[in-house]
Amino acid sequence: MKRGIYPGSFDPVTLGHLDIIRRAAHLMDELIVGVLVNKSKAPLFSMEERVELLKRATSDIKNVKVMASDGLLVDFATEQKADFLVRGLRAVTDFEYEISLAHTNHKLQPNIDTVFFTTTAEYSYLSSSLVREIASYGGDISAFVPKCIIDDIYAKYR
Amino acid sequence: MKRGIYPGSFDPVTLGHLDIIRRAAHLMDELIVGVLVNKSKAPLFSMEERVELLKRATSDIKNVKVMASDGLLVDFATEQKADFLVRGLRAVTDFEYEISLAHTNHKLQPNIDTVFFTTTAEYSYLSSSLVREIASYGGDISAFVPKCIIDDIYAKYR
Amino acid sequence: MKRGIYPGSFDPVTLGHLDIIRRAAHLMDELIVGVLVNKSKAPLFSMEERVELLKRATSDIKNVKVMASDGLLVDFATEQKADFLVRGLRAVTDFEYEISLAHTNHKLQPNIDTVFFTTTAEYSYLSSSLVREIASYGGDISAFVPKCIIDDIYAKYR
Amino acid sequence: MKRGIYPGSFDPVTLGHLDIIRRAAHLMDELIVGVLVNKSKAPLFSMEERVELLKRATSDIKNVKVMASDGLLVDFATEQKADFLVRGLRAVTDFEYEISLAHTNHKLQPNIDTVFFTTTAEYSYLSSSLVREIASYGGDISAFVPKCIIDDIYAKYR
Amino acid sequence: MKRGIYPGSFDPVTLGHLDIIRRAAHLMDELIVGVLVNKSKAPLFSMEERVELLKRATSDIKNVKVMASDGLLVDFATEQKADFLVRGLRAVTDFEYEISLAHTNHKLQPNIDTVFFTTTAEYSYLSSSLVREIASYGGDISAFVPKCIIDDIYAKYR
Amino acid sequence: MKRGIYPGSFDPVTLGHLDIIRRAAHLMDELIVGVLVNKSKAPLFSMEERVELLKRATSDIKNVKVMASDGLLVDFATEQKADFLVRGLRAVTDFEYEISLAHTNHKLQPNIDTVFFTTTAEYSYLSSSLVREIASYGGDISAFVPKCIIDDIYAKYR
Repeated sequence: MKRGIYPGSFDPVTLGHLDIIRRAAHLMDELIVGVLVNKSKAPLFSMEERVELLKRATSDIKNVKVMASDGLLVDFATEQKADFLVRGLRAVTDFEYEISLAHTNHKLQPNIDTVFFTTTAEYSYLSSSLVREIASYGGDISAFVPKCIIDDIYAKYR
Repeated sequence: MKRGIYPGSFDPVTLGHLDIIRRAAHLMDELIVGVLVNKSKAPLFSMEERVELLKRATSDIKNVKVMASDGLLVDFATEQKADFLVRGLRAVTDFEYEISLAHTNHKLQPNIDTVFFTTTAEYSYLSSSLVREIASYGGDISAFVPKCIIDDIYAKYR
Repeated sequence: MKRGIYPGSFDPVTLGHLDIIRRAAHLMDELIVGVLVNKSKAPLFSMEERVELLKRATSDIKNVKVMASDGLLVDFATEQKADFLVRGLRAVTDFEYEISLAHTNHKLQPNIDTVFFTTTAEYSYLSSSLVREIASYGGDISAFVPKCIIDDIYAKYR
Repeated sequence: MKRGIYPGSFDPVTLGHLDIIRRAAHLMDELIVGVLVNKSKAPLFSMEERVELLKRATSDIKNVKVMASDGLLVDFATEQKADFLVRGLRAVTDFEYEISLAHTNHKLQPNIDTVFFTTTAEYSYLSSSLVREIASYGGDISAFVPKCIIDDIYAKYR
Repeated sequence: MKRGIYPGSFDPVTLGHLDIIRRAAHLMDELIVGVLVNKSKAPLFSMEERVELLKRATSDIKNVKVMASDGLLVDFATEQKADFLVRGLRAVTDFEYEISLAHTNHKLQPNIDTVFFTTTAEYSYLSSSLVREIASYGGDISAFVPKCIIDDIYAKYR
Repeated sequence: MKRGIYPGSFDPVTLGHLDIIRRAAHLMDELIVGVLVNKSKAPLFSMEERVELLKRATSDIKNVKVMASDGLLVDFATEQKADFLVRGLRAVTDFEYEISLAHTNHKLQPNIDTVFFTTTAEYSYLSSSLVREIASYGGDISAFVPKCIIDDIYAKYR
């Protein structure tokens, strides 16, 4: 039984995130999408909203579970009996941060390993902050996020 | 008729920016320097001041126009009937952010393309935030910004 | 009159090259595709063949001219009265090499500047060497090169 | 049943490779180490030798199988009914090459996905070519390769 | 007499910093660890505390002196009659920022040069902000900072 | 007594190399420029010629010695009682290779450390291979190499 955790702040979930979720769900027996508290920034969506948007966007993928997580990621993984963390890699800047995170998590909890997927080329430039910026100007975000959450995003800026 | 937009926050304009402006003005029939609102940071100079400093620094280049722009960059470009965005590339970190921006703008408005210049070697380490930091300590900024705006910068820190 | 040169070895031309050619032809009044001698490697296609494949692949773009070039690139540009070199940027590794080349060419011939386009996301992983490798195993290259040159490539490996 | 392929030239296998093999064998139900023909370089060890050294070095890991592979990697994966390719990431230069490879393989065979592990910090600087270089001068390679293959490497340079 | 300055915010000092300090103290006749004011962030430890923690952690290295520094780094170096700045390099992102800093400092004060050490592989992922984040959740930081300052860090989060 | 070794193939020495040599000679009590055998490429200049060109170019720097070195670099450093290797960093690609080399050398000989200088901005794009390429076309190399060796380079291509 391989159980993985895909952590992130998902503020909001993008088509890039969803692509990684689908591929990780194919690799793992069970995939937990772990929605993290972001201490340093005030999020656009509350924790409850982010969990709810993710549940809606992943409702058709059977072995995916969405959960809020506060505290250290490796503690959350241990509680959930997950052996693997899953991360997406878009670019070099990502890559260095992710390597640093993977090494730290491994040092804190040697039984947990991190596996990476590279984002599909067409989503390689996508990020939640870009989506928020475009939406804040009323720009078209339909190519960037799941259809079922578009209205929720625009509603935040009205 | 090739019309390009060189966007930035220019807080304040540096010799590196000016170098790109001159070279882009040689490539384009008309170049609009678009001064952007920066939502996430309180600028040192107000929008009006930044526009005015840029006008002063570019007054000898014929086909350059300085304009304030709020809203989405691609909407501004469309309004101004510009086909090209112009950006300077200094370093790898720049490069990834710029690629992401170029792809996003292209997705939002497929008729607008982005062209890049690499900064001249001697300006490759220059940035507005570096200029602000040195000036805040009263350091010598004469190698970093156009002469005609030096006093305006020091005045902000007095 | 803005004349640009897009240099490369084009062994063979890919859809990524063609994408840059179309976009550069939109920016320039005239675009010369300059096919370079590659001193360090034995090419798959001869210089004549590479010129001929490029002519075929770009036959529908009016302001494009394909020419062989030996000698220094800046000398070729000077002969052709071109003010601009055009280069595509795919990745960080590219980026550093290209910056170095742009600086060197500028030092050798200060009147010539280099402008860059970033490759469209879906072609960002493409290269002539990848095409050659896949074709050498008989793999499917139809998503990577212009249709009109596919048979010429397979023929080389038969 | 998750079956993965870890491809490489393994000329020779290093402790960095072995670290990835152990971790990938923990993730997959079956892991095939695929030894590739390297068309562009004359290897130090023949294909048969590289397979034999790898078998020796991985003899204590149950769900690992070592196989030679010529032809396209995605064809090999399809034949072996493998859904996943496994790759190690050491550095930024690796990263870009690997992303390009992952995208290409996905384009050639959309059912096959690539998962990445980052190399453990202490092996992050290791490569087969470094091992060959040090051994060629008679330097100490015991911190770089599995003990059971050290003599075979020195023997090549005597 | 070679005198160097190793500047940083050291909020708090990590084992990675300490590794650089030891190696730089071996290269220089005298090494000054310069604790900088960080204008943009509220530090966890006050300037006085950071100086005191560093003194404790470096008490066994003879030719090291810890000093607070406000103002421009090059002015501090000139006052202290130091010819060299010392910096650690962990990753590519570091590298570009550091190059930019080194060039700027050289432009401001041409007599001062910057020398770099690369962090030992096992500390390459370490940073003060990572330490703060883990400690804020009560995680184990004993592999990341000098033993003699661990309690001081936890005390800040109680 | 701090003795450092600055290794390279110097085929031929460039103004970028010379800049590093001057700055390292200021840091070290004695600096040995170690000219390495390059196993993988046929050099333009023989080992003897490269040593002789370097001696000529560095004749005005008192504490510099030029020596040929075959064998492992760390063995050469040990023989010469050098504690430090000196390397120049131009770009990200350099950086990763250099980090890997520094780690390996440290693993092979823990008493030897590596210190880095970043190349001055105006030389950051320079390399021996670029000089060779330009000279091979008869291009102007006077901005790239010491005056006293220019004729020797052109002579090789006549």
